[in-house]
Amino acid sequence: MATSSSPLKLGVIGTGAIGRDHIRRCSHALLNSTVVAVTDINLEQAAKVVAELGIAAEVYADGHAVINAPEVEAILVTSWGPTHEEYVLAAIAAGKPVFCEKPLAVTAEGCRHIVDAEIASGKRLVQVGFMRPYDEGYRALKKVIDSGQIGEPLMLHCAHRNPTVPEQYKTDMAITDTLIHELDVLRWLLADDYKSVQVVFPRKTSKAFAHLKDPQIVLIETVKGTRIDVEVFVNCQYGYDIQCEVVGETGIARLPEPSQVQLRSEAKLSNAILMDWKDRFIAAYDVELQAFIDGVRAGQINGPSAWDGFAAAVAADACVAAQQSGAIVELGLPERPSFYN
Amino acid sequence: MATSSSPLKLGVIGTGAIGRDHIRRCSHALLNSTVVAVTDINLEQAAKVVAELGIAAEVYADGHAVINAPEVEAILVTSWGPTHEEYVLAAIAAGKPVFCEKPLAVTAEGCRHIVDAEIASGKRLVQVGFMRPYDEGYRALKKVIDSGQIGEPLMLHCAHRNPTVPEQYKTDMAITDTLIHELDVLRWLLADDYKSVQVVFPRKTSKAFAHLKDPQIVLIETVKGTRIDVEVFVNCQYGYDIQCEVVGETGIARLPEPSQVQLRSEAKLSNAILMDWKDRFIAAYDVELQAFIDGVRAGQINGPSAWDGFAAAVAADACVAAQQSGAIVELGLPERPSFYN
Amino acid sequence: MATSSSPLKLGVIGTGAIGRDHIRRCSHALLNSTVVAVTDINLEQAAKVVAELGIAAEVYADGHAVINAPEVEAILVTSWGPTHEEYVLAAIAAGKPVFCEKPLAVTAEGCRHIVDAEIASGKRLVQVGFMRPYDEGYRALKKVIDSGQIGEPLMLHCAHRNPTVPEQYKTDMAITDTLIHELDVLRWLLADDYKSVQVVFPRKTSKAFAHLKDPQIVLIETVKGTRIDVEVFVNCQYGYDIQCEVVGETGIARLPEPSQVQLRSEAKLSNAILMDWKDRFIAAYDVELQAFIDGVRAGQINGPSAWDGFAAAVAADACVAAQQSGAIVELGLPERPSFYN
Amino acid sequence: MATSSSPLKLGVIGTGAIGRDHIRRCSHALLNSTVVAVTDINLEQAAKVVAELGIAAEVYADGHAVINAPEVEAILVTSWGPTHEEYVLAAIAAGKPVFCEKPLAVTAEGCRHIVDAEIASGKRLVQVGFMRPYDEGYRALKKVIDSGQIGEPLMLHCAHRNPTVPEQYKTDMAITDTLIHELDVLRWLLADDYKSVQVVFPRKTSKAFAHLKDPQIVLIETVKGTRIDVEVFVNCQYGYDIQCEVVGETGIARLPEPSQVQLRSEAKLSNAILMDWKDRFIAAYDVELQAFIDGVRAGQINGPSAWDGFAAAVAADACVAAQQSGAIVELGLPERPSFYN
Repeated sequence: MATSSSPLKLGVIGTGAIGRDHIRRCSHALLNSTVVAVTDINLEQAAKVVAELGIAAEVYADGHAVINAPEVEAILVTSWGPTHEEYVLAAIAAGKPVFCEKPLAVTAEGCRHIVDAEIASGKRLVQVGFMRPYDEGYRALKKVIDSGQIGEPLMLHCAHRNPTVPEQYKTDMAITDTLIHELDVLRWLLADDYKSVQVVFPRKTSKAFAHLKDPQIVLIETVKGTRIDVEVFVNCQYGYDIQCEVVGETGIARLPEPSQVQLRSEAKLSNAILMDWKDRFIAAYDVELQAFIDGVRAGQINGPSAWDGFAAAVAADACVAAQQSGAIVELGLPERPSFYN
Repeated sequence: MATSSSPLKLGVIGTGAIGRDHIRRCSHALLNSTVVAVTDINLEQAAKVVAELGIAAEVYADGHAVINAPEVEAILVTSWGPTHEEYVLAAIAAGKPVFCEKPLAVTAEGCRHIVDAEIASGKRLVQVGFMRPYDEGYRALKKVIDSGQIGEPLMLHCAHRNPTVPEQYKTDMAITDTLIHELDVLRWLLADDYKSVQVVFPRKTSKAFAHLKDPQIVLIETVKGTRIDVEVFVNCQYGYDIQCEVVGETGIARLPEPSQVQLRSEAKLSNAILMDWKDRFIAAYDVELQAFIDGVRAGQINGPSAWDGFAAAVAADACVAAQQSGAIVELGLPERPSFYN
Repeated sequence: MATSSSPLKLGVIGTGAIGRDHIRRCSHALLNSTVVAVTDINLEQAAKVVAELGIAAEVYADGHAVINAPEVEAILVTSWGPTHEEYVLAAIAAGKPVFCEKPLAVTAEGCRHIVDAEIASGKRLVQVGFMRPYDEGYRALKKVIDSGQIGEPLMLHCAHRNPTVPEQYKTDMAITDTLIHELDVLRWLLADDYKSVQVVFPRKTSKAFAHLKDPQIVLIETVKGTRIDVEVFVNCQYGYDIQCEVVGETGIARLPEPSQVQLRSEAKLSNAILMDWKDRFIAAYDVELQAFIDGVRAGQINGPSAWDGFAAAVAADACVAAQQSGAIVELGLPERPSFYN
Repeated sequence: MATSSSPLKLGVIGTGAIGRDHIRRCSHALLNSTVVAVTDINLEQAAKVVAELGIAAEVYADGHAVINAPEVEAILVTSWGPTHEEYVLAAIAAGKPVFCEKPLAVTAEGCRHIVDAEIASGKRLVQVGFMRPYDEGYRALKKVIDSGQIGEPLMLHCAHRNPTVPEQYKTDMAITDTLIHELDVLRWLLADDYKSVQVVFPRKTSKAFAHLKDPQIVLIETVKGTRIDVEVFVNCQYGYDIQCEVVGETGIARLPEPSQVQLRSEAKLSNAILMDWKDRFIAAYDVELQAFIDGVRAGQINGPSAWDGFAAAVAADACVAAQQSGAIVELGLPERPSFYN
């Protein structure tokens, strides 16, 4: 690899599944990055990951030590959700760019603290780990919308379906774990904000655990008046299936299905549907992290911002409130600070 | 044509576009029927249709004369909507089977009068002109649902789109002229009734006349709890497009697109979309009327009943109320009389 | 049924599966026809069909008696193939229109005799039972070609696949029973004649009986130079599947797949493929016979002609010769008599 | 980029379009490589490329100087086709791994020299620039075949279509420039060799230059008896379109279409077809070169071998002979040396 400048030196906080995978990416799959420092709540686990991936990273005692290590130029926060806010604030305080996995913070208020700290720092330092805007399909869809080919978007019909979920998945996780991806990507797709939300509960599937309301339909109105409906159905049995159809004034554009071999066999003309969510956006993770690395090296982070993380959190809070009340809930998102324009 | 018994002798009230077309069908395209009597508010027009179609039908002074003509065995009501109720009631009073084009009556109350009269007559005499249940695609879809292949239906995502509508099309006609077809066919498809409705108005298309709210989304809950959303978009520009996707507990079934030659040309892999609604269900009209003719001759009418017409009217009224109030409107449909089971 | 003139009185020779089905059609499904006379090599079987279908047809001693019965206005020949030539010639001699199921005659020479007799009679009397030109899909495909949308046709890629065939199906039947449908319909589709044919034998499927070469590929050159390849694969296991792709100078048009409900289930996005050939062109049989009936009543038969039957027979002979020789075989079809233009 | 060992130092011979693009890849897009030496027949052009791409590569006087430069660890040959053989042989002589763009040599004999030299060297040093085996779609197709899901492959129906070609494109280039990609990838896909070939010329398109026979159909038989037909149509107007359908004993698998947004607009349901061949396999070039780099660094080159280049050349020679003779031409490919197993 032949760029003149040296690779970006990363510190990674949290070496669980996603942390380990990001370390692997930054060490062996992406350009211009190297992982020099790691930590985890379980230090042995951190050391094991370093050894297994064959990298030359030092294991630090905790996240703050990683952030403050002089050789560390940027941070990846992939620890347990409730710790995100603290580490992101610390990275901002240290003036170091930070990529934080979802959620940016576990409350909207926490996200707001980060937004305020970042604005106070005077510089974009935070990228949130929303990967769908880096998916080729969504990018192609956005390109069609932005081209004007289908006119102004008026309605979106979306679905987020999983084959099954484990027993610990609760009704509000349909928002915070599942819908959160749509809450992020649709704002970006439409370049619009959410105004109000409503949740309705269809007849419950017999395939879900007793405590879980599944499926759910989330109805969203945007500031521009576009209406979004998202079916969240996490025990649909048949596959992991993400649908997004944008109805514009003059035409309709639909998110591409993942490319598959078409089969004629056993009295069926068929294309496979993925069963595992990890296969669906796998390429997007590489693109997302490479964008962070390239952004930091170029001195300009362009990915999902702390403000995007805050806006998603505000929307998620409203959806959870709407689940409970059955009413239409207004978001009351403050105006976007000019810092994020 | 070689059945031993003689063809059914029909009297047709109303020789406008649809009336004329039904006369043509019953005279030249279907089995076992002949049109022997016609009338119209414009008697010259009635005579002209008889002449042009080359049939041997007598022109009567009005609908009651047609109904009471001794040679007339069954009636088609294809006159102006507000006259339907009167003629259907007269046909019931005369003990003659009657096929009535939409709407059965212009008010739910009017439909109820017909239901009551039919029950009082002790015999199924009325078939309402809902043709979608006779469409091959919907029948195939219902077959899949009824087979259990996709489990119990939980949600339906539907769309009813027209390229454009003329200026006289008003906001409530999205219900009474457009959605009415879904209100009919979806009850049949699901073998279920509607419990409540809600209407939301997305950002308005710039292609609609100023007075018209377009598109609209109608949200329906059924008695069994199935949730239906129907996008009604009558200035969508690109085509006449009817979509219906049934999400069941274990799979999803989708109304077939009309069969089309697949083209590769001009940098596109494409299938034509129809522009004219008349082409979409054209074959269903033949099947529908043949079913009425066969039903009358066999002494058992099985098509959409007066009760179905009443139920659709009640639902349409609720939707119009929901358009105006913005609220969720309960239908309050009475229990189905055992007469219609 | 309300046309002024009386139904066409048909005599049917042969009451086996296809004969019985045509009698049912002409008696109970089509317009303006009635079956008044039938016969079969097995007279009891003929009587049984008459009884079962509830029709008022007389059973005659043999085909000639049917043809010469004074009340019979037109003939359907649905008897055993080797008897076709004799009955068609007799019908021509009697001056009566005749619809003859495939094959018109078992040899090209036999077909030629019929052509000569028909020309000598001075009047189009014969329609051959090639039903694919009456299939909606092929008609739509022809419409696209004739519209000029894809420019002049240069190549056709076709396939004719059956799930399995019984043991008595021999290698030459891939031509005479299977390919014969393409030999007929493609001449019509292209308005062109065949110039030469070649047959190649791919690696044999392990699913075929030992004596049968399966699959086969038939390569055809037309007089205009268009190249056709037809894959004939009669043990393909997965379905009855008819493919036809026309490559023109500026685009490609493809025969529509039969319309099916699209399913998402069990990790597949799928459409059913038919398994039984009888379901594939079932609607075309009605249209084909109605066209014969209408043609006879209007005094002008427009369906597949005796010449078409002869041309198909000449092509089939050449294909069988090509199977045996492995060489390119020229057809040597005589010029089309002006009688058939 | 964080592997412990240093990047592979490449020398590139030829800085025209493809050479420049490969230099860009190896410098800025791929992992673990750096370009340290370049040359071109036009040294100024070589210097310009180095400057424009901002890389620290030395410009050498000619290809032999590049090959023999001590710091150069592996070679990319992207010069004019007739020079390939000389440089590849020189690289083998120098014991340096070499990636050679198509063609490996302009004659089969030249390819054979390379094969002999490589075998004599005792080590796999050569990778030929056949990129389609690195395309995701072909890999998915091969996976389906190898899984046994469709049984043994019996037939392949393929098409290679370009919108247009310039005037200098001659009839034999349909083989040497266009079909060559199928000749390569289909051997790999089937793990089989070609036995004989035949070329037929359909009716010529009016869109081609007078001197060019277009379209052409190439018929191939493999050693296992599988029959391949490839339509080569380089003035098809509508798009750059690569089709590959594998008919197996129990089912059919089809190369995925490139993933596209589905549109409903202007009376069409459509997906875009690419117009520019460069967009079709663009991702495969990255994967192909990365595989070469990784292979060299790991001491084991696994990509398309000199033998594959030789086999493709033998097949191409046979196809050109078949174009001229109209006959079936046997390939006479010698047995694969065990060196390449």
